[in-house]
Amino acid sequence: MKVGRIQRTSLDQDCVRLVAVFPEQGVVLDLASAEYARLRQEGATTDAASRIASAVFPGSMSAAIGAGSFFAEATKRCIASMPEKALLDLHSVSWLSPIDPPMMRDFLTFEEHLHNAFVKGRGLPIPEVFYKRPIYYKGNSETLIGHEQEVIWPSYTDHLDYELELGFVIGKTGRDLTLEQATSYLFGVTILNDFSARDIQRQEISGALGPAKGKDFATGVGPWIVTVDELDVSGLTMIARVNGDEWSRGSSAAMMWRPQEIIAYISMGEGVHAGELFGTGTVGFGCGMELGRRLKPDDVVELEVEGIGVLRNSIGKKQKPGWMPSPRSSRLE
Amino acid sequence: MKVGRIQRTSLDQDCVRLVAVFPEQGVVLDLASAEYARLRQEGATTDAASRIASAVFPGSMSAAIGAGSFFAEATKRCIASMPEKALLDLHSVSWLSPIDPPMMRDFLTFEEHLHNAFVKGRGLPIPEVFYKRPIYYKGNSETLIGHEQEVIWPSYTDHLDYELELGFVIGKTGRDLTLEQATSYLFGVTILNDFSARDIQRQEISGALGPAKGKDFATGVGPWIVTVDELDVSGLTMIARVNGDEWSRGSSAAMMWRPQEIIAYISMGEGVHAGELFGTGTVGFGCGMELGRRLKPDDVVELEVEGIGVLRNSIGKKQKPGWMPSPRSSRLE
Repeated sequence: MKVGRIQRTSLDQDCVRLVAVFPEQGVVLDLASAEYARLRQEGATTDAASRIASAVFPGSMSAAIGAGSFFAEATKRCIASMPEKALLDLHSVSWLSPIDPPMMRDFLTFEEHLHNAFVKGRGLPIPEVFYKRPIYYKGNSETLIGHEQEVIWPSYTDHLDYELELGFVIGKTGRDLTLEQATSYLFGVTILNDFSARDIQRQEISGALGPAKGKDFATGVGPWIVTVDELDVSGLTMIARVNGDEWSRGSSAAMMWRPQEIIAYISMGEGVHAGELFGTGTVGFGCGMELGRRLKPDDVVELEVEGIGVLRNSIGKKQKPGWMPSPRSSRLE
Repeated sequence: MKVGRIQRTSLDQDCVRLVAVFPEQGVVLDLASAEYARLRQEGATTDAASRIASAVFPGSMSAAIGAGSFFAEATKRCIASMPEKALLDLHSVSWLSPIDPPMMRDFLTFEEHLHNAFVKGRGLPIPEVFYKRPIYYKGNSETLIGHEQEVIWPSYTDHLDYELELGFVIGKTGRDLTLEQATSYLFGVTILNDFSARDIQRQEISGALGPAKGKDFATGVGPWIVTVDELDVSGLTMIARVNGDEWSRGSSAAMMWRPQEIIAYISMGEGVHAGELFGTGTVGFGCGMELGRRLKPDDVVELEVEGIGVLRNSIGKKQKPGWMPSPRSSRLE
């Protein structure tokens, strides 16, 4: 099953709809519309059909996933009925990030990326902690962008980069999980582009708090989520193209921490929640920094992952500068 | 105006209610109950009164704040009517974090804390970036605890600590703000205890991604929010007591970055949102690490800030160990 989120225009406002995706047929199925049509056909009143359809298929994917197996069953029921008037052309819809997570984490699981960033890039050893535990920073879940959405180029950076990653969506809420339990907590997999402002990131990590402005302006997610029952994620080919030229190629086989280990790790002491998203970190040679190359305005970045699809985002023009913090002097004696 | 969040028990489930707080009278006013009573008295049907009361005063403070000045006006109307049966004893309610933010950031604004942590503690200079921009890490907004709630002691840490901070709640949604605009974006101020697992934090920050498991198990917030029209936050005395003994004392006057500068900074390139929370970082000598002291199970930590109140949390017993990641070896040639 492939599911996503799109923006549609209703009478007086934009609304967000969940869709089932059929790439080979070139169509998507608006799930709330399909559920409404199905209920009406079974004799429900317009009020009842509308009420139930919007409860089962709200605009929030994380809220929908929160219903557990009921969500998958309801989606399959809609796909089985497949009402004509709930079908839309896959190539003309406005995609949003397929997931609106309550929290987004991004891990380091590819050793080669670290080797390139630390050993080759900065003449430093790979931090020991990477081999001890899956480490991560927390991203900004308010700035996720979908397939074909433009990346803003913040005024404060001169060095924009992409990062080729997988994104995993968590299906259940739990705490202090065993590895075996964690395996059943994976909902699906998508493609994640962890856009980065390298000049700012470099400054920020010197302060021991991790990246913030260097990452939080935009993260590409999509084009849709493939549920884990449909795809073995252990050896997927991952490719990045810029303006049609291949820049990066790697495989998920090189992940040092598996998704279920990451979920068990997140759950320790704090819990995981249905609808949360995490990135795998950049595959080796999966960003411009590792290749000595940079993005520029109007570039088109495509990330392709076997069995999922292509996530395409264009890079915007650099924004006009606004307020900036003025430097401080020490007040200590 | 002082506002908070409490847990109440209804017929078949726990529910969360927003309250107006009157510390001197020893009472809180359940705002949804007060609004319901007020509407009924004005002739509304039970259905209409219930529908409107729960829309104006949902269980989510960040959702309520999202209504803008309407929220403050509605709260004042409830306070003016002050129906007897919506009043509760302040000392017997179950407090929650007064804010349920979509995102939580924690900054570094106190130079003395950095001097103690870097220069005295690790023999390193204060990172230059601290003087250039207000830097921060993003916390876990799913693990905020309120006044009198217990802090879990995660199985993976031997070294628990408190951090004495102010917390600021953002009142409006905007982007790329000027400093002048940002001033009107402050909703209120509260007390924040950024509980930390020092042994884990130390490991994590060596990986250049900032703290995660070292911080994310619990953050104390409360006891309530004081709106900024009621309190000048520029010189508040801040005190921490452990089991009744004073360990820390400082003042918000030492903040190197002001709240409006922080809000303008957050808004750059990514936007700020109504209901978001940020911490000021630890005031100088505002944690055990700076004093060579540690917390132990059953300790009671009280943070007191002038004009706000006292946030009290007890420390739980260390949890039983569960799954832990097993170390990896390098796979590089």
